[in-house]
Amino acid sequence: MFATILENVRKTCPLVHNITNYVTVNDCANIVLACGASPIMADDIGEVAEITALCAALNLNIGTLNSRTIDSMLLAGKTANELGHPVVFDPVGAGASRLRTDTALRLLNEVKFTVIRGNVSEIKTLAAGSGTTKGVDADVADRVTEENLGEAVAFAKAFAAKTGAVVAITGAIDIVADAKTACCIRNGHPMMSSITGTGCQLSAMTAAFVAANPDKPLEAAAAAVCAMGLAGELAHARLAPYEGNATYRNRIIDAIYHLTPAMLEKGASYEMR
Amino acid sequence: MFATILENVRKTCPLVHNITNYVTVNDCANIVLACGASPIMADDIGEVAEITALCAALNLNIGTLNSRTIDSMLLAGKTANELGHPVVFDPVGAGASRLRTDTALRLLNEVKFTVIRGNVSEIKTLAAGSGTTKGVDADVADRVTEENLGEAVAFAKAFAAKTGAVVAITGAIDIVADAKTACCIRNGHPMMSSITGTGCQLSAMTAAFVAANPDKPLEAAAAAVCAMGLAGELAHARLAPYEGNATYRNRIIDAIYHLTPAMLEKGASYEMR
Amino acid sequence: MFATILENVRKTCPLVHNITNYVTVNDCANIVLACGASPIMADDIGEVAEITALCAALNLNIGTLNSRTIDSMLLAGKTANELGHPVVFDPVGAGASRLRTDTALRLLNEVKFTVIRGNVSEIKTLAAGSGTTKGVDADVADRVTEENLGEAVAFAKAFAAKTGAVVAITGAIDIVADAKTACCIRNGHPMMSSITGTGCQLSAMTAAFVAANPDKPLEAAAAAVCAMGLAGELAHARLAPYEGNATYRNRIIDAIYHLTPAMLEKGASYEMR
Repeated sequence: MFATILENVRKTCPLVHNITNYVTVNDCANIVLACGASPIMADDIGEVAEITALCAALNLNIGTLNSRTIDSMLLAGKTANELGHPVVFDPVGAGASRLRTDTALRLLNEVKFTVIRGNVSEIKTLAAGSGTTKGVDADVADRVTEENLGEAVAFAKAFAAKTGAVVAITGAIDIVADAKTACCIRNGHPMMSSITGTGCQLSAMTAAFVAANPDKPLEAAAAAVCAMGLAGELAHARLAPYEGNATYRNRIIDAIYHLTPAMLEKGASYEMR
Repeated sequence: MFATILENVRKTCPLVHNITNYVTVNDCANIVLACGASPIMADDIGEVAEITALCAALNLNIGTLNSRTIDSMLLAGKTANELGHPVVFDPVGAGASRLRTDTALRLLNEVKFTVIRGNVSEIKTLAAGSGTTKGVDADVADRVTEENLGEAVAFAKAFAAKTGAVVAITGAIDIVADAKTACCIRNGHPMMSSITGTGCQLSAMTAAFVAANPDKPLEAAAAAVCAMGLAGELAHARLAPYEGNATYRNRIIDAIYHLTPAMLEKGASYEMR
Repeated sequence: MFATILENVRKTCPLVHNITNYVTVNDCANIVLACGASPIMADDIGEVAEITALCAALNLNIGTLNSRTIDSMLLAGKTANELGHPVVFDPVGAGASRLRTDTALRLLNEVKFTVIRGNVSEIKTLAAGSGTTKGVDADVADRVTEENLGEAVAFAKAFAAKTGAVVAITGAIDIVADAKTACCIRNGHPMMSSITGTGCQLSAMTAAFVAANPDKPLEAAAAAVCAMGLAGELAHARLAPYEGNATYRNRIIDAIYHLTPAMLEKGASYEMR
């Protein structure tokens, strides 16, 4: 199933509009190119509606949100909704400040999202309407483990039902769910958390996958999550003993560049719940 | 000829002021260092005039333009003009939104540029005063090929005559032209288009080359275009089978770092028209 | 001594709030992760106080300062002072424009810094209240050499006494001083100056080191400077002949990732004065 999803990205080369943070923006652009799509970054309120209209999907990321870009995100999101374009939301750091939480909730309220991707603490903050995320990483107490997986799946499905979005909670075990079905994914490598922006990159790539597979948002988001995790595995296997997180960052994008539909189909490690 | 151009960059180490986008800014800084020059990034209206005065050249790039930086670009450009400093313009995405097209035209109207570098769709937008660029890549219909090369050269010369700038249209075949002479360049590798920002990097490096060779803007711009293409060839030859666009990005900058005047002279593949 | 300093970073994984420039921000985030800490970047005035409160240290860098972020830096700095959190200041380009010099002096006046790290021209600008830095690199005339080292140490101690901060002047020879003691460091490699942002990265890492060793700011800052220089040495030793500044950038961060307390203890090259 995931082979076709990736084939469609490579065939259609969708253009993806990103309003994202300045920390990981270059990696987001390069991973979108690596998967076969094309990125454009534009955040001024004077052009975001036109740029969104030109693109096949929109990716909103609040990693370094500011008063200028929040309005741009709202306008771009509403425009994408009017045009029926898929919209991915990455609520980076929701729960870490009132501004982030309020902005995330406002976006959730005013924009209909196709996929919401975050770590478990960020998604819990969105679901609860408040939170206490410690920075941009998930709280240890929140983490999804084999023990609490059933509960986490039920939570993801419920939040998907409430929002109408596919919900992707990523971590050691990833959950991608709509209201009825969840895909639990066990690809990836722990060292991915020592790179800034693997989550941001995944959200940008998810927008490309959903754009190329507009009728299958659950499968597309799950395929993107598997692809990222698999790239993390492949890249780690190729690290020399002295290579660390900076080289690993490049190798993950390289692995996406060389990932074939057959490799994704074979390497994806998931179960449906 | 190009050997001396690069030697002058290495000898004079010009300081280059960049007002550029936040997507590729780090790569722009590193490639300016790689070629032997020194970058400074500064975009606040309160300091751009002073920073420009301190530098030997200015590079303006509208890749993530916004209401704050547009005014800074205008002021920096006018200041550079008053001081007789060379100014390079990269109209990223001109034609993709009214804001980009209008800003590009306004800059063209109020600032005298030494070199204008873009893909063919961006340059056509500037020449026509409007356009429909699809994102930040050139439209397939616009592409310069062996078949339409004569026509494209005439167009580049005419736009150079109109603006008084050297016009660099980059793509599979690159054209660098002033009103009378065009240099058609066949260096480069198709994989360069799978990296974000090779165009932005080239514009930043062009500013360094023009700064170090102020009386030869055509030769300096052509040398920079050849150097970038040659770096793309050298870097590609060194890629391991599993290395993709992220590693390729690093290797291109590495190749510029190690490029000698003799290598550039020998490897440059061009004809004058 | 430095072994324990690094061990404490790895053990406590401090969260570091960075308000920094958009040129080198990704590298700053990755080096903070590499040393064992965790970065968060946030610069909107609406959230910086909360984010600072959440973190163990604050790093302020004026590399691409603008009217919006200057107020955010002041607020974050004052908040960190109220909470007793360590604050690192990197006055990038102080002396290159009136805006940079004035902003640096205003920050120095309104915020109490734990560590001030810059090149010698930037620090001299702060001490004199004005300056004529050429861009973001130290003036040749200012450089610390074996000949003027005694004078430079006296200057660093005097500025440390005046500000109450540990002063880190980095260059070919680094000086890290409080009012009474200076540590002169001879780690590093000349090629580090061909990468953008090694200074920015060092400042971000210094914030992590100071956060994990709050009672030893001199030792922590000196250990960070030694670690960065040692990483530069180790990374350079591993460069293939065709690898240049872009790969070197990655390898330095990689070297920090793999740096053990014992390696730092053994490799640190310094003398107390």
